[in-house]
Parts: sequence; C-alpha cells; structure tokens
Amino acid sequence: MGISENIEHIEKTNDKLNLEEKILDKGFVRLVDMMGDDYAAVKAARVSYGQGLKTPERDKALIMYLMEHGHETPFEHIVFTFHVKAPLFVARQWFRHRIGSFNEISQRYTEIKEEEFYIPENIRINVPEDRQKAIVVDDTELLEKVKEAMVKTFEEAYHTYKELLNMGVARELARIVLPLSTYTQFYWTVNARSLMNFLSLRADSHAQWEIEQYAIAIAKMFKATCPWTYEAFVKYAYRGDILEA
Amino acid sequence: MGISENIEHIEKTNDKLNLEEKILDKGFVRLVDMMGDDYAAVKAARVSYGQGLKTPERDKALIMYLMEHGHETPFEHIVFTFHVKAPLFVARQWFRHRIGSFNEISQRYTEIKEEEFYIPENIRINVPEDRQKAIVVDDTELLEKVKEAMVKTFEEAYHTYKELLNMGVARELARIVLPLSTYTQFYWTVNARSLMNFLSLRADSHAQWEIEQYAIAIAKMFKATCPWTYEAFVKYAYRGDILEA
Amino acid sequence: MGISENIEHIEKTNDKLNLEEKILDKGFVRLVDMMGDDYAAVKAARVSYGQGLKTPERDKALIMYLMEHGHETPFEHIVFTFHVKAPLFVARQWFRHRIGSFNEISQRYTEIKEEEFYIPENIRINVPEDRQKAIVVDDTELLEKVKEAMVKTFEEAYHTYKELLNMGVARELARIVLPLSTYTQFYWTVNARSLMNFLSLRADSHAQWEIEQYAIAIAKMFKATCPWTYEAFVKYAYRGDILEA
Amino acid sequence: MGISENIEHIEKTNDKLNLEEKILDKGFVRLVDMMGDDYAAVKAARVSYGQGLKTPERDKALIMYLMEHGHETPFEHIVFTFHVKAPLFVARQWFRHRIGSFNEISQRYTEIKEEEFYIPENIRINVPEDRQKAIVVDDTELLEKVKEAMVKTFEEAYHTYKELLNMGVARELARIVLPLSTYTQFYWTVNARSLMNFLSLRADSHAQWEIEQYAIAIAKMFKATCPWTYEAFVKYAYRGDILEA
Repeated sequence: MGISENIEHIEKTNDKLNLEEKILDKGFVRLVDMMGDDYAAVKAARVSYGQGLKTPERDKALIMYLMEHGHETPFEHIVFTFHVKAPLFVARQWFRHRIGSFNEISQRYTEIKEEEFYIPENIRINVPEDRQKAIVVDDTELLEKVKEAMVKTFEEAYHTYKELLNMGVARELARIVLPLSTYTQFYWTVNARSLMNFLSLRADSHAQWEIEQYAIAIAKMFKATCPWTYEAFVKYAYRGDILEA
Repeated sequence: MGISENIEHIEKTNDKLNLEEKILDKGFVRLVDMMGDDYAAVKAARVSYGQGLKTPERDKALIMYLMEHGHETPFEHIVFTFHVKAPLFVARQWFRHRIGSFNEISQRYTEIKEEEFYIPENIRINVPEDRQKAIVVDDTELLEKVKEAMVKTFEEAYHTYKELLNMGVARELARIVLPLSTYTQFYWTVNARSLMNFLSLRADSHAQWEIEQYAIAIAKMFKATCPWTYEAFVKYAYRGDILEA
Repeated sequence: MGISENIEHIEKTNDKLNLEEKILDKGFVRLVDMMGDDYAAVKAARVSYGQGLKTPERDKALIMYLMEHGHETPFEHIVFTFHVKAPLFVARQWFRHRIGSFNEISQRYTEIKEEEFYIPENIRINVPEDRQKAIVVDDTELLEKVKEAMVKTFEEAYHTYKELLNMGVARELARIVLPLSTYTQFYWTVNARSLMNFLSLRADSHAQWEIEQYAIAIAKMFKATCPWTYEAFVKYAYRGDILEA
Repeated sequence: MGISENIEHIEKTNDKLNLEEKILDKGFVRLVDMMGDDYAAVKAARVSYGQGLKTPERDKALIMYLMEHGHETPFEHIVFTFHVKAPLFVARQWFRHRIGSFNEISQRYTEIKEEEFYIPENIRINVPEDRQKAIVVDDTELLEKVKEAMVKTFEEAYHTYKELLNMGVARELARIVLPLSTYTQFYWTVNARSLMNFLSLRADSHAQWEIEQYAIAIAKMFKATCPWTYEAFVKYAYRGDILEA
C-alpha cells in the first residue's frame, strides 16, 4: 500500500476502533488497538508466492482458500488488543488460552474499592442425565432466591475483606475471602489465529454461558474489522455451534 | 506397550520419583513423572557438536558453560509432570506461566465435597512506604482474629454454595460464591527451562508468600533429580533471592 | 541420582524405547526418550473430575471421547524426544513447528567431515494444471540423469567448501556454498498434541515426499508407544490423508 | 487517548513506518506495520494498578522501572510486522525464535527467477584457540579468491537448478541443489518482548556477522518507534554487547 491509502485505511480503522460492548451486569469488552486486517493476511500469504495484493475478488478468494485448507499462519499477522472487565471465574477460563498476552489488574497492589460482584440474571440448573450439562431455566422465583443468597454472601465477604484491611492485613491476603464472582480487568493481545481458536471453544453452547457472552462480543468486533476472514472462519474453520455468517 | 508392562513401568517410575511434599495447611506438590536428567541436557547440547556423553567432569562443566552463557534450549529436553493441590489465588498466579501444560479439576463438573479452604498461619501486613510490599508479622492475637474472620466467611460461602446446589442451581453457577482460598488441583507438565523461569519469579521474596512455598518445594525436587543443572542455575541464571546452592 | 543409577536408568530406557528407523538414503529417526503413555493422558484428564485410572475399557473410552470432542490438553502430558538425521530442506520444514524444542548440530562449530548429501531415488515432476502439485514418476532414465546432475553439483559444492576451509575461511562462512540437500542432525522434544499436529500436516500427500517419510516413521513410533491415543487420533483428529488405524 | 490524539499519534507512526534498510548485498528489512508504542506498554502495565497514562515523565519512569525489575509482559502489547529478505542460512537462524509468526516465500511453489545469492564482502577466519570464534580479516586478496570460488559454485548450482527444471523435475526437488547463500523472503510478526530477546542474541558479537547486520537494522527501527522502551532495554535487559543507548 502507498502512504495515502495507508492513511485512509488507518482512519477507517480508527473509526472501527471505537468498538466497545457492555457484557453481563458490570463487564465490558473494548477493542483498544489492532494491527492489520483482511489484507494483512493476504499479503503475508502472498509472500509465499513472491506476490502482493491483487483484486478484491482474488484477495477474498485467497482468504477463503487459506481457511478451507487449514493454512492458518497468515492470520497470525492480524493482531488485536482488547480491554476486558469480567468476573474472576470468566478470567480464569480466558487465561487458559496460552497463545496471547495478558496484563491484569493486581489485587495484591490495588484495593477493591467497592462491591463489584457479578449478580446473574441467567440461571442454569444441572440435569441428572448429563453431569456436564447446564440448562437455562426461566424461573423468576428461583432467580430471586439465587440472587438474594448470592448478594448476601458477597456483601459478607466484602465486609470481611474491608475488616481485614482495617486490621492492617495485606491486600494480597485479605482478598482470599473474595468470591469468584469478583470483577477483574485485563488487557489481552492476541492474533487472529489464536482469537479464532478462542471463538471455537468459547462462542459455543458447551462453554459457560458467561464467557460465551464475551466471546460473542469479540466475534462481532472480529467481523467488523476483518469481514472476509470472519466469513471464511465461520464457513470453514469454526468448531463451535452458535456463530453464523 | 501392553497393560502389564505398563503397570511395571509405572511402578518403577514411582520408585524413582517418590517425591511429594505437603504445602500450606492442605496442599501438596507431587512429582508424577519426569523425562531426562542432567545427561539429557548434555546430549542435546552435544548434538550441536556432533558428539555425545564424555566424562562426568566434562559433562558437568558443559552444563555450567551452557547456563553461564545463556544457552538454555538444551534444558528444554528435561520435562517434569507435577500434581499440585493449591488455593485458587495461587493457581491463578501459576497459570500465568504460559510455556507449560495444565489440566485442572473442573468446578463445573465436580461438586466441592467438603470445606476445603486455605486458612493462613502466616500473616502479612502492608506498609505505608511501599504499596507493593507485604511483611510478615508475628502477632498471635492478630492471627487468631484473622483466622476467625476468614473461617466464618468461608463457612458462610460454603453454606450458600450447598444451598444453591440444593435449589438445583448448576455447579458452574453455584461455585461463584466460593472464595479465592478454595483449594484446587491440577497437573502441570513443564520443561526445565520454563521451570527455572518459574523459580526465578516465584522462589523469590517479591512473590506472594504462599506460591513461594510451592516454588521452594519444586526447587528441591529439581535439585534432587538434576543436581548439576540446579547448581548451574542457582549460580548463573536464577534471578530470585532465596534459593541457594 | 548418582552416575551409576543414571546409567542403569538410561539402559532401561533404551530397552524400552529401542525404536529407530532408517529414512531416505542416509537419514534416521530414533526415539531417544519419552514420558507418559496412554495412561498419562487419562490421569491428566481425570484430574478434571477428581478421579484417576479406572478399567482399561473405560480408560480407552475416555481417550476416544477426549479426541472426538477436541479436548487436546491431556495429550500434552505425553512427551517424546527424537534424534533425527535429515536433509536441510526437510529440517527447514520441520522447524516451522514452533511448539517443541530443537537442538541442532551447528555448522558454525563443526566441520562437515564427508560428503553427506541426500540423493533422491524418488523423482517428482510439476504438472501444468496445478502449480502446487508434484507427482511421482517412474522413469529410470530421468532418475539417472537427475542423480548424475545432482551428484556432480554436490561434489563441486563440497570441493569448494573444503577449499574455502583450507584458505582459512571460517566454517560459518564456508558452509554457505553447501546445498539444501546436506544432512543435518537434531534433537526434537515434543508433546503428543503438537506431534499429532505435525502428523496432520506432514503425514499427508500435500507435504513434500521426503518429510512425509519421516512423519510416517514417527507415526509408527507414536502408535507403538500410545496405541489408544494413536487410534483415537486417526479416527477423530487427523487431518491428513495417508495414515490408517 | 482520545480520538484526536490517537489520529495524531497514528499519523506520526505512519511517518515512522516508512522504515526500510538495505542489508548485505541484496537483502533488506522493512517495517510493514506496527501496533502500539511506548504508551501501549504503559497502559498495559497500569491496568495492573487500575490506572492509565499520566505525565510523560512518570510514563517513562514506569517503563524504566518495568524493565529494571524484569516485568516484561507489558511489552508484549507492542507488535511489529517486518518484511525481510535474507540468505537462507540467516533465515534458518532467525526461525529458531519461536515466539513470533513467519510466512516465507515457498521454493516449492515459486521458481527462483534469477541468480540471487549472497556474495560476502566481509571475510572471517576461524582461530585455532577457540573453535567457536570467527574473526574478521581485512585481506583483499583472500576476499577476491573467496568470492571467485563462491560465485563459480553458485553459478553451477543455479545452472543445475535450471537444468533440472527443464527436465521437468518439480521445483521442490530441483531446489535441493541450491546453496545456503540463496536469498529468501519472509514476513515476521513479533511482539517487543520477543524482539528484545532476538536483539540480545543476534545483535551480539557472538552471533554470525550477517544476522547481526539484520539485528542492528531492527534495533534502529525499534529505537525509532519506541524510544523509551529501547533506552530502558539497552540499560537494563539487553544481554548482547554491541547496542548502545
């Protein structure tokens, strides 16, 4: 690309980068920065043939071809940085994805200032037939009872946390009374190949419902910034069961 | 291999590796299996010169040379599998080490059967001068007050957890009331190079005291199985401040 | 471990692993060491449920289940070390597999003592219809002409290499005249998950024929040491087109 | 950052991205794209404290602090894509750096159109005292003899390559007669942490002189785009012996 197209492209990207979505009751996903787009994958792939960009039709066709045949390395040259706010039990699942970079807020160095806990509005129950299954139930009465029990426990835990801090106990030790519903924040830098693997596993009905909501938001931002790669992914490489072209 | 040879092999391995240590009040580290030893690093390094093992003196000298000059790849051919039981806040720090393999007990699939929470016997306080510092205090009265407050909170959280399960709530959702002190278990497979990096960061006075105890136990097992590599590591590559030759 | 136990251990391991196969005209693959087996994957997976080994039938069924549903992390606890001798152009393809550890003989430090070049017995031609395709031809006359041209070029290159060394030129510089057919040797430590990915890409008719031969040998050793995992892999996860259960 | 600063910053970066340097006789390094800069590391680090950018002085001081204390993860959020043309023996050393993404021109799919071989102008000799050492000699007569011998061998190899292609031999097989001096091209996407590790090992007098030249060019581009991080790196984390602040 020449300089002028490049600037034009960067401005477009900048518009796109105002991408933020609220998730759950207090969480969010925000696209902080990105490098590359559909064309970055094309250029990286074409270096294999000693060639560059061609027509949009042929460039898109190449992306389809690469994805169909499992040539995933060109998609590693598209990179995203997200800022995420999510409950600890979601973060724990997220951090299992090792190909990527994480920086998380530290509860050792930072006091949790207010009661920031996830209160579910979506209740699931286990079923006797399948130990791994959890199905959503629409039961207002149960929901209220669950929320009440949770809120009470969260408040007590937070009260103990503050009490321990007041005794002079170090933040790193006081925080062990906090529940897994506590919100945390982190930066996540990940290339498109690894992001697609994340989507296959987490934008899927077998994932826990909460992380699924984050994965769906990320899928939308991926689609908005790399429409051809997203289309090819959903068609050829996606192993989950909820995303659609 | 057939089953019988396999069992024989596992028993032999067990004899060799019978390394296990209790950590904190209810945790442990157990060396489940390992591949290679000091000689594996020597052989991998000598392939660079088209040579194999020589005398023990020269083999040890090579290990010292490699470590002193930052040639760390030969140590990737020594691999360990550990079985670890640790509180969630320790596991969270542990899983940040991406070069390695983890399989963890799932609270989505498995009910936590009894109250398994970490109750500290080691109390630290923050100091006003340095936000990141936590120093140990020997204050029996404070310790008793802290433990009492924690136990009460843990019991209430566990009570709510059981209550939610009794309402039919899915394990994956009920567990979000559990505190970060809850014990978990995992398998960790890691090569010696990555293990040494773990020790530099976690067998160190800036690490949280609890994970430091695990790191010290792992350092002992590393020393017992790879004495030359351990000696060279502490002398030349270790960046922490507590391990000694 | 002391030296004597170590030697004993190495000898035992050798008995167990005496797996070596000649590849191409002068190459080989040798299984130097391994950690774990089918049971290691089972144990790592069962930690997720807080359980261990059960009956062979149920353990094998678990392996099949894991592979069918894409749960690949338990297979990372099975680890292999191979010693490989292969032409440089094969090594170059091999080293693209990043999840694994390599130590290679250094042409900077070691003089290539004799003419060790790969002379093909298997000739492929490109076809006009498909730029990426190479098909084997059974044409003795062509084969002889190809070999003659290659041998002559290899001998001249080696002659220049020796001549440069005799002028005092450093090995690292003299070697740049050597052809891509030159044999090299390396140690490769890789877990079963990454090894399976290698097999999907290299034990496949789209791979270059030469690396395919190495991949087939590795597939055999994988099958011999982890028969259930191999069976499950070929059935559920293998993306190549030549391996069979 | 607000949108307007962001655009200003992107425009600056765009100016910077016209970074290209010729290396050796026919090679180059070109910075194709990048994500983030010094501020990206600051923002990622501050998320640990629940804070963002502050004054330039404090932001720079934080970078110095992070580097001095080995906190390297924030630098993973700065990512570069380079386009590189280098001889195969240089590429072979480069590809050993596993934390990064590579796409290389394929000699299986693409015919090498002209004689593109590296002809050294810098001659090194081995010294008897140290097998690993190669020292530069300023000997015009030797240089001419070396170049003559090399050029002759390269021409013969290329002649054979074309001859084999003319016989119909597949490109993937014909190319095995080509020397290690043959130029190749690749895209390399790498984060700043991994790039710094590359510089420690390759911008160093123990590296082969040729890859050192590429490393020096990359160091310059790193310095131009991330001046604070570069300064902190050279001061606190760099393990090589040629770069200076």
